[in-house]
Order: sequence, then C-alpha cells, then structure tokens
Amino acid sequence: MAYDDNNIFAKLLRGEIPSIKLCENDAALAIMDVMPQSEGHVLVLPKEPAEEIYELSPEAVASAMAMVQKMAAAMRKALAPDGLMIAQFNGAAAGQTVPHVHFHLIPRRRGEELRMHARDMADKAELEATAQRIRAAL
Amino acid sequence: MAYDDNNIFAKLLRGEIPSIKLCENDAALAIMDVMPQSEGHVLVLPKEPAEEIYELSPEAVASAMAMVQKMAAAMRKALAPDGLMIAQFNGAAAGQTVPHVHFHLIPRRRGEELRMHARDMADKAELEATAQRIRAAL
Repeated sequence: MAYDDNNIFAKLLRGEIPSIKLCENDAALAIMDVMPQSEGHVLVLPKEPAEEIYELSPEAVASAMAMVQKMAAAMRKALAPDGLMIAQFNGAAAGQTVPHVHFHLIPRRRGEELRMHARDMADKAELEATAQRIRAAL
Repeated sequence: MAYDDNNIFAKLLRGEIPSIKLCENDAALAIMDVMPQSEGHVLVLPKEPAEEIYELSPEAVASAMAMVQKMAAAMRKALAPDGLMIAQFNGAAAGQTVPHVHFHLIPRRRGEELRMHARDMADKAELEATAQRIRAAL
C-alpha cells in the first residue's frame, strides 16, 4: 500500500508533534504510548516509512527488534511486571490504528485485564514519571 | 531463569516430537501451531535455548525476526487474511504457555474473534493442507 506521509507517527518522527521519548538511534525511536493498554506501554517505531511489516526492509526489522529487546530489558528492570507482551499489528482487522509499522511492548500484571487499544489518553505527568523510570534502567 | 531443556518446543527442535514444519534454517524453525487461535496460526521458534526474550542473543532475535517477516509475506500471499497479528509473550501473565521463546503469527479476519490460546487441538489434515498452501507461497 502507498505510505501516508501524514500519519501521526510520520509527523511524530519528523518532530512535528510531541512525544515522550525513551530511546532513539538512526533506525528507530522508542516512546511512551499516550493511550496505554497498561501502565508502562511502550512503542518502538522504525524510522523507515512503511505501513506494514511486509514493506519494511529486513535491516529495519532487525534494527527495530534490537531496540525492542533493549526496551524490554529496561522495562523489566524499571517496572518489574509479571509479564511482557510484544505485539505488532498489520491491518485494521489485526488492531492496527496508525498506518506506520510499530511494535507494542505492553507490561502484563496478574489479574489485570488490558485496557482497550487507543481509546483513553493517559495523564501526561504520570506518563513522564514512568518514562523516567524506564530511561533510568536503560 | 534457568532454561528447561524438556519443554515441548525443546523436544520439538530436537526432533523428539513431531511438528508440521514450514521453513527451517540454522537459527530458527517455523511450524503450524497445533492449537491455532485462527486458521493459519504459525509459530517461529529461535533454535537458541531461551525462555524469554531477555535471555535471547541479539543475533537470535534478528534471525528469528527475519523468518517472521518471511513467513508473514508467505501467509499473506497464501491465505490473504484481512490482517496479521505478530506477538511474542514473556511470562505466564502475558500468555506464554511454553517456556521457550516463540513468535506467533496469527491471521486476522474481519468479524472473527480469536479462539482461546492453547486450548483446542486442530484437525491434523486441515493443518497440513494449510501448511502446504503457505509452503507454496514461500
């Protein structure tokens, strides 16, 4: 599919809209999800423009997953969740809401259901406080 | 955590129990999930022994994801689902049922809910038929 250069993550990667950044290199950016499904929900965005995983270069997949693994370790250290779900959705039918490939890292806690995806905006100060804990563990 | 060398995927990788193989190289193996959450549910197993993503070497993550991307393309071509969910669960609280790192590739279809994880065994002939379609698209 043709990549939409005006999707929210494209704008965010160009710095046109703000984000709570956790980690960044030439190939990928890790940020807090502002509509978290659980406390500490992180997103890793490959910088390469691609809507779904099919269009992403193998190099971009590898770079993004290197950051996913690094963030997973930091999240475990900082937040000590009972589990961690890593997910990447292709297509609206799979739950994709923004047409730029992204990896979800969602802390799971026993007895806690996930909130609905992309519905409620979290408190910014709380997100920033969680972000600082994760950054400190990087 | 100490890796349990007798988990079902370790046995499967050693060839001690059967599996419906789709693709294999030195680093990873793709198979049909015998308890699929939707038709065409595929698993990619890194061969390196590791319970969770934290313990997997970065090289093994990259190799496994290269196979995930390859399988995703073949599944799209063969099965044409409306969407594709890629997921990797760490810890029972996140839905992990076998203590060897694995990546789920789950076709999603509009209006179709996912079946429960790891509950019902699929018909072997049906699994094999789907496997043949995916292999043909590799």
